[in-house]
Amino acid sequence: MNPDRIQAELRPIGVIRSSVKTRRDAPMQGSEGAPDAWLEVNSFATEALDGLAAGDEIIVITWLHQAQRDVLKVHPRSDPPRRLTGVFATRSPDRPNPLGLHRVTIREMAGNRLRIGPIEAIDGTPVVDIKVVLADTKDS
Amino acid sequence: MNPDRIQAELRPIGVIRSSVKTRRDAPMQGSEGAPDAWLEVNSFATEALDGLAAGDEIIVITWLHQAQRDVLKVHPRSDPPRRLTGVFATRSPDRPNPLGLHRVTIREMAGNRLRIGPIEAIDGTPVVDIKVVLADTKDS
Repeated sequence: MNPDRIQAELRPIGVIRSSVKTRRDAPMQGSEGAPDAWLEVNSFATEALDGLAAGDEIIVITWLHQAQRDVLKVHPRSDPPRRLTGVFATRSPDRPNPLGLHRVTIREMAGNRLRIGPIEAIDGTPVVDIKVVLADTKDS
Repeated sequence: MNPDRIQAELRPIGVIRSSVKTRRDAPMQGSEGAPDAWLEVNSFATEALDGLAAGDEIIVITWLHQAQRDVLKVHPRSDPPRRLTGVFATRSPDRPNPLGLHRVTIREMAGNRLRIGPIEAIDGTPVVDIKVVLADTKDS
């Protein structure tokens, strides 16, 4: 297989509904004072939630739809005195494939809606995957 | 924005070169006896590696190209006695958007090639993102 020719079109499985409305207002990391938010799961994927419960830790993978995909170097934490660094050595949302990783706790489940947090993603951010955190591994 | 209508076509930034050749031979998690492997970064993205070094911990995000995208429930760890569970409550590769998360250590860097491990991804798996692990956050 030619690895440049994969068919890898993401299909959103849900969306973030948050009080954080703009990228400028978003904390840089969930641990930096981010609020809780609602994750609304699309109907086709609701069945895939079976087995999750309030209190569980999950990794939410988002598609950072406002990010720039042609950026390869940034000043870490948007701090100009810090030298330009490759985006793979940072957590910048700007990168070739702008996937966001958010480790959060499920606060509440209500049908296809999960209250989760803390999470810095802005309102309307598409969600592309959810993975439970395994207690016995660190790759989460 | 209609969250069902995002433009989210992933572009591979590299590929895994591993001694693990088939999904059947792959450990279920990197921590379960997986080997080291090479991550070959495509030339367009090599600049984005600047700032990474041997010894760094990174999250590699892969596109699990052999996974099934229409599976919503599985038996955890492919163990039939375990009850059918939603894929979001598992780490099954089969899921609507088959993204793999691999927390690994960089063993060695040689130009656009990184020796990383341990990693359970099979040979030829496309890589779509690399993120450094931040010491002061757990969302990795």
